[in-house]
Amino acid sequence: MKKHLLLFFVVITTLITNAQDNKKDSLQMRAIYDEVLINGEAYENLRYLCKNIGNRLSGSANAQKAVDWSYQLMKLYDFDKVWLQEVMVPNWKRGDTELCYVKDAVGNNVKLSITALGGSIATDGILEAQVIEVKSIEDLRSRDNKEIEGKIVFISQAFDQRMISTGQAYGACGAIRYHGAAEASYKGAVGVINRSLSSIDDDFAHTGAMKYRDSIPAIPAVAISVEGAKFLSEYIENGNDQMSLELNCETHEDTLSYNVIADITGSEFPKKVMLVGGHLDSWDIGEGAHDDGAGVVQALEVLRVFKALDIKPRHTLRCVFYMNEENGMRGSIAYAKWTKENKEEIPWVAMESDIGGFTPRGFSIKADDIYYQAISEWSDLFKPYYSDLLIKGWGGPDIGRLEDQGTVLIGYLPDIQRYFDIHHSDNDVFETVNKRELQLGAASMTSLLYLIDSHGLPSAIKD
Amino acid sequence: MKKHLLLFFVVITTLITNAQDNKKDSLQMRAIYDEVLINGEAYENLRYLCKNIGNRLSGSANAQKAVDWSYQLMKLYDFDKVWLQEVMVPNWKRGDTELCYVKDAVGNNVKLSITALGGSIATDGILEAQVIEVKSIEDLRSRDNKEIEGKIVFISQAFDQRMISTGQAYGACGAIRYHGAAEASYKGAVGVINRSLSSIDDDFAHTGAMKYRDSIPAIPAVAISVEGAKFLSEYIENGNDQMSLELNCETHEDTLSYNVIADITGSEFPKKVMLVGGHLDSWDIGEGAHDDGAGVVQALEVLRVFKALDIKPRHTLRCVFYMNEENGMRGSIAYAKWTKENKEEIPWVAMESDIGGFTPRGFSIKADDIYYQAISEWSDLFKPYYSDLLIKGWGGPDIGRLEDQGTVLIGYLPDIQRYFDIHHSDNDVFETVNKRELQLGAASMTSLLYLIDSHGLPSAIKD
Repeated sequence: MKKHLLLFFVVITTLITNAQDNKKDSLQMRAIYDEVLINGEAYENLRYLCKNIGNRLSGSANAQKAVDWSYQLMKLYDFDKVWLQEVMVPNWKRGDTELCYVKDAVGNNVKLSITALGGSIATDGILEAQVIEVKSIEDLRSRDNKEIEGKIVFISQAFDQRMISTGQAYGACGAIRYHGAAEASYKGAVGVINRSLSSIDDDFAHTGAMKYRDSIPAIPAVAISVEGAKFLSEYIENGNDQMSLELNCETHEDTLSYNVIADITGSEFPKKVMLVGGHLDSWDIGEGAHDDGAGVVQALEVLRVFKALDIKPRHTLRCVFYMNEENGMRGSIAYAKWTKENKEEIPWVAMESDIGGFTPRGFSIKADDIYYQAISEWSDLFKPYYSDLLIKGWGGPDIGRLEDQGTVLIGYLPDIQRYFDIHHSDNDVFETVNKRELQLGAASMTSLLYLIDSHGLPSAIKD
Repeated sequence: MKKHLLLFFVVITTLITNAQDNKKDSLQMRAIYDEVLINGEAYENLRYLCKNIGNRLSGSANAQKAVDWSYQLMKLYDFDKVWLQEVMVPNWKRGDTELCYVKDAVGNNVKLSITALGGSIATDGILEAQVIEVKSIEDLRSRDNKEIEGKIVFISQAFDQRMISTGQAYGACGAIRYHGAAEASYKGAVGVINRSLSSIDDDFAHTGAMKYRDSIPAIPAVAISVEGAKFLSEYIENGNDQMSLELNCETHEDTLSYNVIADITGSEFPKKVMLVGGHLDSWDIGEGAHDDGAGVVQALEVLRVFKALDIKPRHTLRCVFYMNEENGMRGSIAYAKWTKENKEEIPWVAMESDIGGFTPRGFSIKADDIYYQAISEWSDLFKPYYSDLLIKGWGGPDIGRLEDQGTVLIGYLPDIQRYFDIHHSDNDVFETVNKRELQLGAASMTSLLYLIDSHGLPSAIKD
């Protein structure tokens, strides 16, 4: 009987403790959301970054301005430590000439909306060649070299609108941009054009990263707008094939840049780091508003809110503005190299926001199941905020570099139906970010980090 | 043993049947989503409504154009029955003069951004009066009549940004617009201004419905932009109180208009109606894109998809474009009166989309728990579409009129964080509607109606 009585008290005490914890967490989360929704600074910070600095490709003067601004801002917030981590970054410059013409029925030039892919070489003056359409990388591979030699290859694979996850749809056609140039050049092509990886039918071209291969000659590589791609398919179908292309982009020597980092030192576990970040660089068209201005201002807001609400984190809370996610990942590579060499710096947990500042859905976890399960137990706390979706399998591009160091990786998961309409295009501007959506994301990120900080994660493994 | 064996087979058969049903439903839903995402017509229909017709307040020439267009479109889709239901609607005309001025420090006029509330009377020439601020309806009620008499009352209650549901925040401050004029006039005011029921700080005023009371003199009533409201509070706090207001709106005789209705006749239960609808009228500023152009084109898309996929509904599937939701509800009142008088027409189920064409979250059910439970059992089918949220308690303003007739009411539930930024303002335009978000909503509406049609709802009560 005594044993049963003891068990009874243990169970009751646990239940009461859990209920009290839950009540305390729920109140703290409410305070976090209130702080962000009433006094939030993420939106105005993003306005400054987009409107006063603008887009900020690695190596550009704007990227340096963004580094300086970020550093000063973190200093102003008076965090415990603010520092710059040196990173050598690529330095590619889009030229002032980006022209693509075809000839209409009466021989007039028709201009198509294109954008050079990041890292593309220039044309040698005006490149005049026949254009040939292939439907995909596989289609290209199946062609005879003779069909391709000396031509500009147009890869017309479309973004698959049927996929509910636009991220998945983006991934499914990503190879035409990333590998198009190497694949086409391997067959003897003199230029390559990919249909923009875009979820909307408009006349804006979407740039992005691509990769040449050492053993294969580099050829000029551009993306064409969806409307341009449709026009081009029809043009070719009607028996035409004349095209001229002109680019004057340049690749310069690698340049010194920085990851910008701020810490709130942990009160109990100063050497145990919870990282939250995004990337400060952006493509050189648009303003890098959703990609990834939103992510960095949200990450910064997490630290601001801890401080504003006087939540003293038990573990060190570190904000990292990574440099060069878009065309080289040099910032995250440098950061991961540094933690590997300084093992006490390896983050215990890392969270990233890099799929836009849209309305929150929840989080995606890349870690052992035990962490996923532990985080899932807080799911109900996020239900009042419609932010309780937890999926497995993805963290983020920058924090992903920490995967082999055992870090628990958490990706902030907004609703991304609108993301690939504007991603890497002139339309990724501040006006497309909604204040409440951005704020609710920052509040949900802060809340989950608060929960992890105060409760830890399963102790058998990590805590 | 025999009994157990029988039970075993019953259970197994049920499990197999359920699994087969589930598989069939899942495939059919996938086909519905594919059809909408690839061949969807909702977005182009919305473009036409917004750009070729424009806003369409009840009684206006545009509202009649919208009725004609809708009727012709439904005819073109070749549904089994297309008809107009007569409705007498209010006919209020905003004037070409909407002016509100205060005096700056040196006596110059400063123009504030206002919009007349729907139904407001005009001013008699220029109304010059002192302006007094109250914080809320309760604050207004607590004032001495002497404080209010002869003045313009400015009710400055703000949209509560802390509320996660913006619909709830809208509701919480709605009285300042709807009842402000009557409450202020009751105290002797000569005019009333409410801070716009808006979730964004900008200079756009948001109009909307208001109600005079028969026993209380009508006074001019306007909404002011959030920026204007902040300016005005400061103006008053600095000891100023001069204001001039001029409106020349007019209320004309009620006018004949129509609900526009299309049916696909049920193959098994032609007299059992599943209604899906939205409202065709809109406010007379902006384009009525989210409110409620999105709703009507989504409702129409449901019928188009049934036909395109050759899904022959067992029950009659009826699309209703209600007239006059915004300022009188006459369309839904007329429809509900007609079904009450013709009992065989009472809808079994009614679904409404009237909180914008944003990314889907799920549905809200207003019906006995037994229906909520039955619908919840399909929830997993919506998970792959991130549209599985089911909440209780709300259907929609137009279908709400059917509540006392026992109809199962279902509100389409999008994510509405952005809705009250643009609602009832010049910013509710086509460009704010995202194609994929609109389509995914239409697909989820079609899917739920497909499930209800093929499986019925609990037979003990309704089926």
